[in-house]
Amino acid sequence: MNALYFDGQLALREVPTPRPKPGEALIRVSLAGICGTDREILKGYSSFRGIIGHEFVGRVEECEDKQWLGKRVVGEINITCGECDFCMWGLGRHCPNRTVMGIVNHDGAFAEYMALPVVNLHEVPDTIPDEAAVFVEPLAAAAEVLEAASIVPSPRTAVIGDGRLALLIAQVLHSLETSATKVTVIGKHASKLHQARLLGVKTSDIGVEKLPAASFSLVIDATGSPEGLAEAMRLVEPRGTVVMKSTFQERAHFDTAKLVVDEIRLIGSRCGNFSTALDLLGGGKIKVRQLISQTFPLKSGLEAFEYLNQKSCLKVLLSTGANHLPLPVDAPPLPK
Amino acid sequence: MNALYFDGQLALREVPTPRPKPGEALIRVSLAGICGTDREILKGYSSFRGIIGHEFVGRVEECEDKQWLGKRVVGEINITCGECDFCMWGLGRHCPNRTVMGIVNHDGAFAEYMALPVVNLHEVPDTIPDEAAVFVEPLAAAAEVLEAASIVPSPRTAVIGDGRLALLIAQVLHSLETSATKVTVIGKHASKLHQARLLGVKTSDIGVEKLPAASFSLVIDATGSPEGLAEAMRLVEPRGTVVMKSTFQERAHFDTAKLVVDEIRLIGSRCGNFSTALDLLGGGKIKVRQLISQTFPLKSGLEAFEYLNQKSCLKVLLSTGANHLPLPVDAPPLPK
Repeated sequence: MNALYFDGQLALREVPTPRPKPGEALIRVSLAGICGTDREILKGYSSFRGIIGHEFVGRVEECEDKQWLGKRVVGEINITCGECDFCMWGLGRHCPNRTVMGIVNHDGAFAEYMALPVVNLHEVPDTIPDEAAVFVEPLAAAAEVLEAASIVPSPRTAVIGDGRLALLIAQVLHSLETSATKVTVIGKHASKLHQARLLGVKTSDIGVEKLPAASFSLVIDATGSPEGLAEAMRLVEPRGTVVMKSTFQERAHFDTAKLVVDEIRLIGSRCGNFSTALDLLGGGKIKVRQLISQTFPLKSGLEAFEYLNQKSCLKVLLSTGANHLPLPVDAPPLPK
Repeated sequence: MNALYFDGQLALREVPTPRPKPGEALIRVSLAGICGTDREILKGYSSFRGIIGHEFVGRVEECEDKQWLGKRVVGEINITCGECDFCMWGLGRHCPNRTVMGIVNHDGAFAEYMALPVVNLHEVPDTIPDEAAVFVEPLAAAAEVLEAASIVPSPRTAVIGDGRLALLIAQVLHSLETSATKVTVIGKHASKLHQARLLGVKTSDIGVEKLPAASFSLVIDATGSPEGLAEAMRLVEPRGTVVMKSTFQERAHFDTAKLVVDEIRLIGSRCGNFSTALDLLGGGKIKVRQLISQTFPLKSGLEAFEYLNQKSCLKVLLSTGANHLPLPVDAPPLPK
C-alpha cells in the first residue's frame, strides 16, 4: 500500500499493508487531516519514525469482532495498556505505556490502511459526512479546553492564533450560550480571521502586541509557536487562566515572576473526548467544512505539506480515493 | 530613625521617621524577618528603591483611629486603591494601582518605624509572641498554596526546597489530617531536612534529579531558584499540579511540551490570607520558632544578610530593640 513515511525525511513509500493483531481492526482510510503536530514531527518533535498522521475517518475491513465489519469509524490516537492506574481511571491518554498513532511508536493514518485496537474506535453516525468526521480528533482536543480549565464562561476570552485548532476552539467557546460573542480570536491572517467572522466569532487583527496587557481573564494559546505562551501571559489578567494547546519542538520561556505575582493558572491541554466531538458535530453547532482549504490525493502528500506553507491555509486533507460517505445533496461545495 | 535602604546598594541609613498620612498608622517595628524576595531585590528584582522588608510585627504609636493605639499588629503588604474591580472582589493583592511594602513603591519594615494604612493591619492576639507573629506574612503565603491549587490532599505531595518557606508549606500541608505523613520535603541541606523531620515532615535528600520522574501528583516549587520549575515539572505526574512559589530576577524556561502532553496545571501563588495564618499560629499546629536561625539588631542588618549566605540558615530576624511581647516562660530557648 502507499503511505507517507518519515525517517528524517518525508516520502511516499510502498509499504506492506498492516496485519491486525488480536483485538485490532484493519481500517481502510478514506480521509485524513494534516495537523500542526505532523509538521512539528518533520522538524524532529517526538523523534518519530514511521507512517505519520493521526486524524482520519475510514471503514473497518477486517476484525475478529464481526460487529465492526463495514462500520465507518474514527479512532482515538492513544493506544494504551489498559491495565495501569491511568487506564483504570479512564485517563488512558496518559497511560505511561502508551503508543500514539503517528506520533509515538505506532504507524499512523497517512496510508491506505491502518491497524488500530477496536477499543479505540468510535462509529460515525450517518448524519456526519467524512469531511466532518475527519475533524473529530482536533475538535475533541479543542473541546478539552473546557474541561482542562474547568472554565466558567468568561466575558473576556481570547484565543491567540487563527489556525485550524484556534478556529475550532473559538467555535466551541462561542457555542456556550453564556459566552456567545465574547470570544475574541487574535490573529495575523486576514483570510483566516475573515473565516472566523463567517463562523460568528469576534476577531482582532491589530496585532497581539498592541492589545493592552492583562485584558483577558482566559487566554487560549493555539498559536503552535513558542512565542504564543509569552503573548498569552502578557494578555491574561491577575488570577486569570492560560490554556496552552501548542506543542512544538523548541523550548519556550517566559517571565515566571508574572505567573507567581499575578497568580496565573497555566494549564496544558492535549487530547479530548471523541464522544463529545461527535456530539458537537452531530448537533450542528460546530462548523468544520468551512475550514477545509484543499484536499489532495494521498499520493500527492508531499505537495499537500508544501501547500500548508501558504499563510491563508487552514485544514488540508488527504484522500486515499476509497469510497467515502458523500456530502449531503444540499451541502455547499467545498472551498477550492 | 535607622533603616536598611536599598538604592542599588544596601546600607544602614539615618532617614526621617515617616509621617502617617490620613488613614495610616505609624508603627514602631519590633521584629522583622528577611525573606528570599528581599535578597532578590538586592539582585535587581522589581527595581525597588527605598527601605526594604515586608515581614514584621510592631506596635501602633500614632493613628487617627484611636482604637488602634498601642495595639500589637502585623500588616498586609499590598497597599491598594480600594476602588478597582480587584479591590471590590476582595482581591486587593492584585489591585493594578497597588504599592507593595518594601517591594514596589512603598517603604518597608527594616526600620524603626513604618507607616501603613489601618486597613492593612491585623491585631495579634496575646497568645502569639512576636517571634511567631513575625511569621504571619510568610505563613499566609504558605497557606495560600491550598487555595491556589484547590488542593485535594494528595498521597504523593512533594515540596522542593528546604528553606523557610518550604518548611512552612510542608507544615501547612502536613497539618491537613488526610495528608499527614504524605508530604515529602526534597532538599539538599542536611540540617534543614533534620529540622523538617523534627517538625514531623518526611524528607528526601537523595537529590531531586535521582527521584523517579512523574512520581508526585502535587509538587510545590519553593526553591526560590530558576531550576526549581524544571525539577518540579519532571517530578509531577500526568494531570498533576505544580504550584510555583518562587520569585526571582532571572527568567526560567522549561519544556512546555511536557506541560501540554501531560496536561499539567502550573499555578502561580504569592500572598495569602493573614487571618488564616493567625489562626494557624494560634491553633499551635504550625511551629515557626524552630525556624529562627539568628536574630540580629537592625543596626547589624548588613551582617544579617551576610549570615543568610550560610547554607544551614533558615529564618533570620532583625530586632529594633523596641520592647516586644516576651516569649512565654515555658518556651524553649531560641536556637543559636
